[in-house]
Amino acid sequence: MRLYGYFRSSAAYRCRIALNLKGLPHELVSVHLRKGEQRGESFLKLNPQGLVPALEEGGRLITQSLAIMEWLEETHPTPALLPRDPFERAHVRALALSIACEIHPFQNLRVLNHLRTELGQDQAGLDRWCRRWIETGLGAYEQTLLATGTAGAFSFGDTPTIADACLLPQVFSAARFGADISGLRTIERIARSAAAHPAFIAAHPSKQPDFEA
Amino acid sequence: MRLYGYFRSSAAYRCRIALNLKGLPHELVSVHLRKGEQRGESFLKLNPQGLVPALEEGGRLITQSLAIMEWLEETHPTPALLPRDPFERAHVRALALSIACEIHPFQNLRVLNHLRTELGQDQAGLDRWCRRWIETGLGAYEQTLLATGTAGAFSFGDTPTIADACLLPQVFSAARFGADISGLRTIERIARSAAAHPAFIAAHPSKQPDFEA
Repeated sequence: MRLYGYFRSSAAYRCRIALNLKGLPHELVSVHLRKGEQRGESFLKLNPQGLVPALEEGGRLITQSLAIMEWLEETHPTPALLPRDPFERAHVRALALSIACEIHPFQNLRVLNHLRTELGQDQAGLDRWCRRWIETGLGAYEQTLLATGTAGAFSFGDTPTIADACLLPQVFSAARFGADISGLRTIERIARSAAAHPAFIAAHPSKQPDFEA
Repeated sequence: MRLYGYFRSSAAYRCRIALNLKGLPHELVSVHLRKGEQRGESFLKLNPQGLVPALEEGGRLITQSLAIMEWLEETHPTPALLPRDPFERAHVRALALSIACEIHPFQNLRVLNHLRTELGQDQAGLDRWCRRWIETGLGAYEQTLLATGTAGAFSFGDTPTIADACLLPQVFSAARFGADISGLRTIERIARSAAAHPAFIAAHPSKQPDFEA
């Protein structure tokens, strides 16, 4: 398997976590987002969406991090990254989607570029924009965990799921944009669990071959 | 089953299509987004994310439209809204996610409110913002359909999938924001198929009890 990604891409980071959790060997191919390689002819031929991550296996390409994780779950079911009960699966998927749809889109590089060039935002304005969605979104995530009472060491019980594969990259981005999530105790607890887990450690941006400080 | 939604919510519209496709009877509960009912105490108690749609069954609540559709697929598998082959399932999920993560978040009411109040955008600015993401995103959707050659009357073959349940509400929003998608022939063909399909017709915003012109 070959994962097209970028060390700082939050969505690629999710897939690295999922691949590591399942113990699947994979080759990392760096697509340099800040240099615009995702909009280059050769990458667009591979993925017309011009986005990472993309997973290649047997000459076929899968895009979108959540579709990649669901495919991994269906083709390599052990260890499971979703519970077995349909309602519990829906709960974990909803947690993952609350990050993928309600927080992460707003911090995407092309969105920040648009805010800068078209809406005249400076770096402080971009950081405020990102913090707004991260703080609201992770606050709602915490409230959902508290309301449902399903979190243990991770978002659902004591073993990682696709929700954690989305949460931890978002917590990483929160620090990067200076978002204040210090009051979110359950998320803090989960972040501590992940900081001690080999699959999460190996997936961290700072551990990637294309890492730049 | 009870679906909390709003006639114009694109994500609620997706769930109405899926429920209709599966022929599942359901009660619609309107949450008036423009009046802010989604941030009211009683709704936040139900869904701390403060978002529609939410599906209630047997006293349990499922949030996030894609999690709701996956749950419907797992608990009421016929007719199927996903292909059977894992790679093809990933393809259909990626199409759905390309709308749910790359287009729809930017036209959410709370995002438009933020752009208006915090970034000083007027209505013309908001429409430009929405058009930008709709035109880019649906353009990429069309390119993906052309590159993979999997579309028939619908996005994957001749029967509707969760990809179409996401696409048609997005096409509806495209018209609302004045986006130009006139060159996207495959999407136009799918829109014509949906316009003749009872499940899509009944789910249309104009057919909902809380519709306002």
